[in-house]
Amino acid sequence: MARVRNDEQYELRRARILSEAAKVFRQKGYNSATMEDLASALGVTKAAVYYYYPKKNDILLEICEQALDRALERIRQNDSSQPAADRLRQMVSDHVEIMTDNLEEFAVFFQELDLRRDPRARRVITRQREFATRVEELVQAGIDAGEFRGEADAALVTMAILGMCNWLYRWFRTSGRSPDEIVQEFDALLVHGLLAGRPTARDGAKR
Amino acid sequence: MARVRNDEQYELRRARILSEAAKVFRQKGYNSATMEDLASALGVTKAAVYYYYPKKNDILLEICEQALDRALERIRQNDSSQPAADRLRQMVSDHVEIMTDNLEEFAVFFQELDLRRDPRARRVITRQREFATRVEELVQAGIDAGEFRGEADAALVTMAILGMCNWLYRWFRTSGRSPDEIVQEFDALLVHGLLAGRPTARDGAKR
Repeated sequence: MARVRNDEQYELRRARILSEAAKVFRQKGYNSATMEDLASALGVTKAAVYYYYPKKNDILLEICEQALDRALERIRQNDSSQPAADRLRQMVSDHVEIMTDNLEEFAVFFQELDLRRDPRARRVITRQREFATRVEELVQAGIDAGEFRGEADAALVTMAILGMCNWLYRWFRTSGRSPDEIVQEFDALLVHGLLAGRPTARDGAKR
Repeated sequence: MARVRNDEQYELRRARILSEAAKVFRQKGYNSATMEDLASALGVTKAAVYYYYPKKNDILLEICEQALDRALERIRQNDSSQPAADRLRQMVSDHVEIMTDNLEEFAVFFQELDLRRDPRARRVITRQREFATRVEELVQAGIDAGEFRGEADAALVTMAILGMCNWLYRWFRTSGRSPDEIVQEFDALLVHGLLAGRPTARDGAKR
């Protein structure tokens, strides 16, 4: 029993370090931030940080892995038996929520080039690819079912969706907008943008 | 005349340094890249680089200023007498072209936090704000004219458009897609997503 409690304590402390480190890395930049800065933000000794994370790079990798795991967990639950527009709505809502709840973590992931040089970064890149693949499958399913425009290019639409949502890491904090407002607007833009069978006179004249 | 020619030479050399520096900064990260790295990429001595740019930070600032100036130059020419859908199409086409032609420069701008700590970074931030304001005015004009959906939120739509286009700095190079394909897809998504007067039975049932 004592062992279980200790494990829980250990995990809780690691989680606290990760969350604080994301803020410190985002503010100072990963390269400039020291273990000293992190210890001082946590109000503990440097030795206490080293006990949980011997290397700064391990902290960076875990921050990114965890952020992507949270995003993946949601999209894996996206119910493929539902209509594509509903699935897209769910995906956008989940992703905006995960992004805005883990803003520092995603900022660190998107900003820190150095990550890519660590061989273990592959684990992070693999997760990122799985996420994009799942979005693309969702979009393609909507096209195949005739629900989304037949001429839409699922891979490019996926990049557009990811860009829209991921860019939040740069503007959400200063926007004064709620995640709900953002989800509603993005959803309207994408669903109107993708639904099939809505040609206009304008399109006919233009293309 | 000699003076003019010298000025031209001087500007050409500065331009070459900026363009090479953007590549070096993107590859190594601004913090890790040294003036030595830059000199070696250019095939000149370190002293030759210092003659044009005494400080590494000046190079970073000029890379970002120049990239934003190119984007601004285009959007300032966006013809406000045209219908909003055409203006949006032109804006997306211009911005995708500017992004893909200046990929390293924009990557450096988006990645390098450190920029923000330089007081002269204000000049860059001001340009960035002007760009976003001009996109928002374009979207708002379309809403006001009844051309775009009345309930669209111009500020959030602007962030969605910027996210879609700016994210290119992360995926364009490995996508194997042409700027034209991307423009066509983004344009279809946005114009369908924004045009007014296209409610579907689905929308009625859902909202």
